[in-house]
Amino acid sequence: MEVNEGVLISEFLKALDLVGTFVFALSGAVSGVRRRIDLFGVLVLSFVAATAGGIVRDVLIGATPPAAIQDWRYITLSLAAGFVTFYWYPLVAKVKSPILVFDALGLGLFAVAGAGKALAFHLGPGAAVLMGMLTGIGGGIARDILVAEVPVVFTAELYAVAALAGAAIVVIGDSVFGSSAPAAAIGGVVCVALRLMAIRKGWKLPVAQQLD
Amino acid sequence: MEVNEGVLISEFLKALDLVGTFVFALSGAVSGVRRRIDLFGVLVLSFVAATAGGIVRDVLIGATPPAAIQDWRYITLSLAAGFVTFYWYPLVAKVKSPILVFDALGLGLFAVAGAGKALAFHLGPGAAVLMGMLTGIGGGIARDILVAEVPVVFTAELYAVAALAGAAIVVIGDSVFGSSAPAAAIGGVVCVALRLMAIRKGWKLPVAQQLD
Amino acid sequence: MEVNEGVLISEFLKALDLVGTFVFALSGAVSGVRRRIDLFGVLVLSFVAATAGGIVRDVLIGATPPAAIQDWRYITLSLAAGFVTFYWYPLVAKVKSPILVFDALGLGLFAVAGAGKALAFHLGPGAAVLMGMLTGIGGGIARDILVAEVPVVFTAELYAVAALAGAAIVVIGDSVFGSSAPAAAIGGVVCVALRLMAIRKGWKLPVAQQLD
Repeated sequence: MEVNEGVLISEFLKALDLVGTFVFALSGAVSGVRRRIDLFGVLVLSFVAATAGGIVRDVLIGATPPAAIQDWRYITLSLAAGFVTFYWYPLVAKVKSPILVFDALGLGLFAVAGAGKALAFHLGPGAAVLMGMLTGIGGGIARDILVAEVPVVFTAELYAVAALAGAAIVVIGDSVFGSSAPAAAIGGVVCVALRLMAIRKGWKLPVAQQLD
Repeated sequence: MEVNEGVLISEFLKALDLVGTFVFALSGAVSGVRRRIDLFGVLVLSFVAATAGGIVRDVLIGATPPAAIQDWRYITLSLAAGFVTFYWYPLVAKVKSPILVFDALGLGLFAVAGAGKALAFHLGPGAAVLMGMLTGIGGGIARDILVAEVPVVFTAELYAVAALAGAAIVVIGDSVFGSSAPAAAIGGVVCVALRLMAIRKGWKLPVAQQLD
Repeated sequence: MEVNEGVLISEFLKALDLVGTFVFALSGAVSGVRRRIDLFGVLVLSFVAATAGGIVRDVLIGATPPAAIQDWRYITLSLAAGFVTFYWYPLVAKVKSPILVFDALGLGLFAVAGAGKALAFHLGPGAAVLMGMLTGIGGGIARDILVAEVPVVFTAELYAVAALAGAAIVVIGDSVFGSSAPAAAIGGVVCVALRLMAIRKGWKLPVAQQLD
C-alpha cells in the first residue's frame, strides 16, 4: 500500500519521535525499578511503555508488522532507556520535572504522528482521531496493566484529553486544507501546551458523584 | 474480501447490536464510576467494554480496521452511555435488574453476530464458535483487566457458557442447513434464556476441589 | 504467502510443540484452580497460557487467523489439560518438578518455532528474535494479567533470557548458514539447558538498587 507518510513526518518530527520513545521508555523503566522487578522485566516495561500505543495502532489499521518491531531504532532506544534507569536509578529519579516535560513532548508527537499515519492508511476522521489518542496513551496503559495497576492516564491531569486535542487538530486540518503538515505542528503544540498547563495548574477532569 | 454479512445481520439484528453496545458500555461506565476514575477514564471503559470483544475478533480474523473503530455509531453510543452514567450515576445504579436483562440480550446478539462474521470470513467451525464466544465476553474481560481485577466472567452465572451455546448453534446451523439466519435467531434466544435462567436460579459452574 | 515452515518444523518439532502446548496449558489451569476460579475460567486460562504467545506473534507478523485458532489440536490439548487439572488437581499439584522440566521444554520449542516462523514471514533478524522470545513468554504473561498479578516471568530464574538465547541462535544460524534446521536444534537445547540450570542453581537477574 502506498502511503504519504513522508510528507507528514519530516526529519524534525522523526527526531521528536525518537525523543518521545526514549522518554516513554524511561517511564516504563522507572515503574519497573520501583516495584523491584528484575533487569529483564525493566527492559520489557521500557519497550512496552515506549511502543505499545504504536504497535496496537499498527495492528488495528492493518500495518503489520508494526514499525516498532521492524525498525531497530525503537528497540535500541527503549533498551538504552531501560539500562540507564536500571543502573543509575537514583539519578533518573531526581530529574522528575524534565521528564514530565519530555513526556509531554512525546505525548504530543505520538498523538500527531498516530493520527497522521491512520489518515495515510485511509481511516475515517473519527477513527483517525481515536488512533492518534491511542498512540499517545497506549504505552502508559499497557505499562500499568503489566504491573497490575489501574492506568494512571485515568487520573492524570488532562493527559488523554491533550492527546485527543492534538489528534483532532491534525484530522481537521487534513480535511479542511488537504495537507496535514501545518496542522501537525499546531496539533503537537496545542497538545504539549495543554498537558504542561494542566500539570502546572492542577487541572483535572471531574470524578462522578456517588451515593456512598 | 467479499463477505455475505448482509444475510446474517438483518436490520433487526443491527438494532439489537446497537442495544448490546449501549448496555455493555453502561457496564464499563459503572465499573469506572465505582472506582472514582475520572470522566475520560469512564468514557474509555465504556468504549472498551462495548467494543473490545469485537475489535479483538476482527484483528484475529484479519478484518482490519475493526468495525467498532470505523463505524461512528459504536463510539457515539459508547460515549453516550458513559456520559449518562457519569452524570446520572445514582439513577443508573438503581436500574440494575433491567441492565442485567439488556446485558443478556447483548451477550446473545454479540455471540451470534461474532460467530456469523467469523464464518463469513471463512474460519473453520471450531474457530467460529471461539470467535462468537470471544465477541460476547471479550469486552467484559478487557474492562476488568483495565481496573486491575480478575474478570467477573470467570465467576458469573453461566456467562461464557451461554455465549458458547449461542455461537455453537449458529455454527451447527450453518454447516447443516447452509444458511445461518434461523440458526442465528435460535442461538440468540438460547443464549439469552440460559443466561437469564442462570441468574434467576443461581446456576454456577463448579470450582475445583483443593488441598488447603 | 508462501512460507517454508516445513523445513524448520519437522515432525519431531511438531510433537514437541504439542507437548509444550499441553504443559503451558497445565500452568494456566493450575493458576486458575489456586484462585478458586470456576471450570470455564480454568479452561480459558489453559488456552490463553498455551496459545497467547503464538497468537500475538501471528497477529504482529500478519499471519491471521492465528494457527492456534485455526488448528483444532491446540484448543483440544488446552481443554484436555484444563479438565485434567480441574478434576485431578491434587495429583497435578504433586508433580511439580516434572512440570518444570516440560515447561522448560515448551519454552525452548516455542522460542525456536516462533523465531523460525517470523523469519519465514520475512521479518528482519532483530524482529525475529523478539518474536521468538514473545512466543515463549507471551502465554505466561497473558495468564498472569488475567488473574491481575505481576507476570512471574519478570522475577523467575532466567526465563525470558533463556527464550531470548534460543531465538537468537535460530536467527544467527539462519543468517550465517541459510538454513535454520540445525540452528533450531541447538537453540532449543541451549534454551532448555539454560532454564533448567537456572532453576537448579537459583540464577536470577539483578534487581536495581534504590534509595528507600
